[in-house]
Amino acid sequence: MFQSTTKVRVRYAETDQMGYCYYGNYAQYYEVARVEALRSLGISYKNLEAQGYLLPVSDFRIKYILPAFYDEELSVKCSIYELTNFKIKFKYEIHNTNGDLLNFGNTTLVFVDKETKKPVNCPKFLNNKLLKFIYEK
Amino acid sequence: MFQSTTKVRVRYAETDQMGYCYYGNYAQYYEVARVEALRSLGISYKNLEAQGYLLPVSDFRIKYILPAFYDEELSVKCSIYELTNFKIKFKYEIHNTNGDLLNFGNTTLVFVDKETKKPVNCPKFLNNKLLKFIYEK
Amino acid sequence: MFQSTTKVRVRYAETDQMGYCYYGNYAQYYEVARVEALRSLGISYKNLEAQGYLLPVSDFRIKYILPAFYDEELSVKCSIYELTNFKIKFKYEIHNTNGDLLNFGNTTLVFVDKETKKPVNCPKFLNNKLLKFIYEK
Amino acid sequence: MFQSTTKVRVRYAETDQMGYCYYGNYAQYYEVARVEALRSLGISYKNLEAQGYLLPVSDFRIKYILPAFYDEELSVKCSIYELTNFKIKFKYEIHNTNGDLLNFGNTTLVFVDKETKKPVNCPKFLNNKLLKFIYEK
Repeated sequence: MFQSTTKVRVRYAETDQMGYCYYGNYAQYYEVARVEALRSLGISYKNLEAQGYLLPVSDFRIKYILPAFYDEELSVKCSIYELTNFKIKFKYEIHNTNGDLLNFGNTTLVFVDKETKKPVNCPKFLNNKLLKFIYEK
Repeated sequence: MFQSTTKVRVRYAETDQMGYCYYGNYAQYYEVARVEALRSLGISYKNLEAQGYLLPVSDFRIKYILPAFYDEELSVKCSIYELTNFKIKFKYEIHNTNGDLLNFGNTTLVFVDKETKKPVNCPKFLNNKLLKFIYEK
Repeated sequence: MFQSTTKVRVRYAETDQMGYCYYGNYAQYYEVARVEALRSLGISYKNLEAQGYLLPVSDFRIKYILPAFYDEELSVKCSIYELTNFKIKFKYEIHNTNGDLLNFGNTTLVFVDKETKKPVNCPKFLNNKLLKFIYEK
Repeated sequence: MFQSTTKVRVRYAETDQMGYCYYGNYAQYYEVARVEALRSLGISYKNLEAQGYLLPVSDFRIKYILPAFYDEELSVKCSIYELTNFKIKFKYEIHNTNGDLLNFGNTTLVFVDKETKKPVNCPKFLNNKLLKFIYEK
């Protein structure tokens, strides 16, 4: 299965007074990782929007095992594990530099027309590109 | 079952270029709502920390149905639906002023000793207070 | 001079590992305060955008005196101290519940056409409304 | 004068409905840049805190010239332009990949004892290291 790994360093802004990376910030790290995953496949999310498609998140789940700390460089693994005409599902795992699994999760994204804001099918060019990578790699 | 409702207005900072409230910001809204839910029971999360207890989130799930927009005043309903010695589970629903359900979700929080960072049992005074409210209301 | 006061409570997400409200978050509090200041004058920033005007910030300065802590309810005073055809200047002061001055600052906002993204003059209806309040109050 | 450049890519989370990177997010980019500037001098801000020193920001100013957009890779130049016993001043410039200057600003940081939260002098080892780099480079 296709998999991409992105590095993210915990910013001071992202810590909380517990001394941990705030639990709500991982949604951003996951977003960064899936954009980089798509980029590694030659797909620019920015261009997708320019072509009239939005991909809002319809479902997000995360299981926290260990905290991340300030200034740690995290590895965010991202893979696509399901693709239908209507949605695309990513899963994620974050490890610290010791190799500890800090959390894992998944998101479902749906295809929406930028103008009408109505659900649409996955555009063909994207579907072809994604299918090729999901199953050939 | 005990339930509390907190109002949160979507800040400009919280919108994204899709024109929606960014999907990752609801973790903050849920946090605000559960702190207010506890406050309405006479429990200050700030004091809990001062007494040596941290309540990190161990699991978070959210299902998005409709987007929230800039400047909308959202109602975040929060209730406690499970309490054991080791964890406390909250669930949430966000509605806009039209009464539309925008998203719902849940979080599990665990009790941790502030110094050792090890899991501990729910402190007795908290357990008594919560049980009373969960089942009497 | 016209002045408005808005309450903002420091969220857990907004603390950092120093135990302070992160220095970068006050830009959001100031934004919330100026939107509420305008609302108290009968001006909806949301509607301004709908009418084709954006008000990006062109200058922001803040002087920090004392930190804000988790769960504190802050009072954000906001006033308009200069209005020309091209820009509008707000100033701010944040106090905690003890009345301590935590920080003060100012922002300059410019008028921009939503479509062309070019600078424009302050729309007449806004100018009239603001001038009346700035000088009559 | 010593100068360091750090790359930061604008996250989707950091855009607002104007389609710009939200004005309040640059405080984070500046923070990331000064931490990397110190790291390039062999100084870990994380270790400074571990050794008992906090460096809160006492003054922040930013002048916005052009917006940054989603997914742009920004270059954040950071230099130290003043160092006394009590404070350290950084200045910053952000350019996009076209070389356009998007904004510039500065921050003043003060030295604080982690336990007492009182101002202290710049620790000697830090002072020596910084002076050497500021004036020799």
